Amino acid sequence: MSITTPRGFVAAGISAGVKASGALDLALVATDDGAAVPTAATFTTNLAAAAPVQVSRAHMAATGGRAAGVLVSSGNANAATGDRGRADATAMCALAADGLGVPVEQVLVCSTGLIGIPLPMEPIADGIPRLVAARAGGDAAGADAAAGILTTDSGRKEVLVEYPGFTVAGMAKGAGMLAPDMATMLAFLTTDAAVEPGPLGDILRAAVADSFNSMSVDGCTSTNDTVVLLASGRAGRGDPSLVADAVAEACADLAGQMAADAEGADTVFQVHVSGARSDAEAHRAARKVADSLLVKCSINGKDPYWGRVASELGSAGVDFDMDRLTIAYGGTAVCRGGIEIPHDAAAVAAHMAGPLVSIECGLGLADGTGVVLGVELGYGYIDENRTTS
Amino acid sequence: MSITTPRGFVAAGISAGVKASGALDLALVATDDGAAVPTAATFTTNLAAAAPVQVSRAHMAATGGRAAGVLVSSGNANAATGDRGRADATAMCALAADGLGVPVEQVLVCSTGLIGIPLPMEPIADGIPRLVAARAGGDAAGADAAAGILTTDSGRKEVLVEYPGFTVAGMAKGAGMLAPDMATMLAFLTTDAAVEPGPLGDILRAAVADSFNSMSVDGCTSTNDTVVLLASGRAGRGDPSLVADAVAEACADLAGQMAADAEGADTVFQVHVSGARSDAEAHRAARKVADSLLVKCSINGKDPYWGRVASELGSAGVDFDMDRLTIAYGGTAVCRGGIEIPHDAAAVAAHMAGPLVSIECGLGLADGTGVVLGVELGYGYIDENRTTS
Repeated sequence: MSITTPRGFVAAGISAGVKASGALDLALVATDDGAAVPTAATFTTNLAAAAPVQVSRAHMAATGGRAAGVLVSSGNANAATGDRGRADATAMCALAADGLGVPVEQVLVCSTGLIGIPLPMEPIADGIPRLVAARAGGDAAGADAAAGILTTDSGRKEVLVEYPGFTVAGMAKGAGMLAPDMATMLAFLTTDAAVEPGPLGDILRAAVADSFNSMSVDGCTSTNDTVVLLASGRAGRGDPSLVADAVAEACADLAGQMAADAEGADTVFQVHVSGARSDAEAHRAARKVADSLLVKCSINGKDPYWGRVASELGSAGVDFDMDRLTIAYGGTAVCRGGIEIPHDAAAVAAHMAGPLVSIECGLGLADGTGVVLGVELGYGYIDENRTTS
Repeated sequence: MSITTPRGFVAAGISAGVKASGALDLALVATDDGAAVPTAATFTTNLAAAAPVQVSRAHMAATGGRAAGVLVSSGNANAATGDRGRADATAMCALAADGLGVPVEQVLVCSTGLIGIPLPMEPIADGIPRLVAARAGGDAAGADAAAGILTTDSGRKEVLVEYPGFTVAGMAKGAGMLAPDMATMLAFLTTDAAVEPGPLGDILRAAVADSFNSMSVDGCTSTNDTVVLLASGRAGRGDPSLVADAVAEACADLAGQMAADAEGADTVFQVHVSGARSDAEAHRAARKVADSLLVKCSINGKDPYWGRVASELGSAGVDFDMDRLTIAYGGTAVCRGGIEIPHDAAAVAAHMAGPLVSIECGLGLADGTGVVLGVELGYGYIDENRTTS
């Protein structure tokens, strides 16, 4: 299986020489016939958005949500590169569009890597025609594309979700802890289901909210984050709610692969908040806990210090009543009514020794729920991130 | 010099046995004649506020801002302790009030230490009468009080600011990184200037905003943070703006002592933001940079990776235009117009090798300015915070 499994797509990945290591650093996903198909994309909310994000946003606006392909370069983020960066990103699209025989606006572009350094355009410009020529169906081409978008990931991240009549495939890279200086997450999805751009956007936004936007490695929002979903329509029109389910499943799977691959981190943790005034408040509270340095350190130390969790919930900016608070680890309640209760400490310790810790927080106010996935803070994160060299 | 230097105050510190080490763990600052004097206090904004915070807030409200003394216990935060915690905090005030011969509402109480564990009231109840009896003027008693509020601080934090005709003295403990499980900052100030409760509150709020609230060790807001300022009036009425200056100076000095004492951290950094739409936006942007795990790691690695600073500014939730951005390290500009410019890399490296790194960010939009003090992220923070044992 690969990004080319849904009918109507081809892919390619090559080494253009951006990465000194010689690893694959250019990737392409495109329609097999050059058609511009309904496409949805979500981009970083960072106002320092990288040049390729600016260009892809403009292309999506120009086409009303249709693309024939997505071009990706890895090793350099083309971020904080000013007018030159925008010109480079546009030139990349033009070269790919040329090869694909489509208008430039029908190509989207993403880059990931170091910030603040101009793109090495010579190897990239040489590589794009080779990349386009190499595009093919089948798993080998899909695997090359999935490899070409990586930075310090330990391996490819791919997913295939099969529903009766249609499929959704995806590939992704990153998350902050993965990537010393390349704190970007990119994900690309294809489906052969037929969905128009408007509803396709709704489907993607919902799936992203519950997957990539519900995990936090370090609370940093990259300049380059991008998720793109292309729908070829080759499987014909299906039930939109089933397509939504399949896309959500694919995104959740890729997000889980990212968290599991966080370098220097063996333990991830899920913060479940229920009983909040709203789902939005629950999500905000869960994110505050997941991003807390003190909580992340406790997870690293396998220490069920629920007082820190309570303190983060109390400062999350959401409605909160300490006297109604319950906290459990892996289903074992340790706090009720805001105070510690007798509990099975051995059960909690056993749960915290595992690779996925669950912290369940009940606010006792209303029905809002939310879940955010976090990652422990250990030496590995510091080793990865203290210098660019 | 000590907290008793301003005329009209006595102090004491004793070991009551809360700390297993036998270190001093109860402290008192009080007026020398039992008078309830104008008093200002700022408390944590955390909605999981500890019992002593709840009780002290109620006492301040009941008296309209007058107190005869402040009682402090260290080693246990009396946080997440429910009704029992509130009863314990009130009982502590009552015992001290008894000894001082004042109504219970005229005593404020603070605790600092582990969260979620009931206070050991027996040694505390035994200790308070001894503490009150030990109260005295002079530097020895003041030093005992300054020691009695500490947790894992490396030493006492005291300040004296002398102005013509009046003085301001202070003592403080903590900041997150100092304290593995006792992420509390407490500060107590006395002055012999005569100021009424209303203006005294304004003076304290302004000083706290520019000192303790403009530093961030780990972005965590404790359940117990408290700053109290008592004004005996013995020096007579002075120029309120001079009192404000003196209090601000004292708070800034204590905040600097806290940052410098952050365990496991040798380097602190100041994030200066100018050119923002407002001072509030500048402060928010500076805090986003100061709290960034990636920036904190870069400071640890002495790596001037300005792209991360730009990325944090772009996601700080303030108005931002990448093309107007300038970034400098220690006065050496590395980024202008949102892109890297030729610069003296050796000068930047030399600056980053020092103990205080300055990052100057210009947003180029308006006149708002703000400064936040941050602390590097290294192994030391993790070692201190991974377990409570």
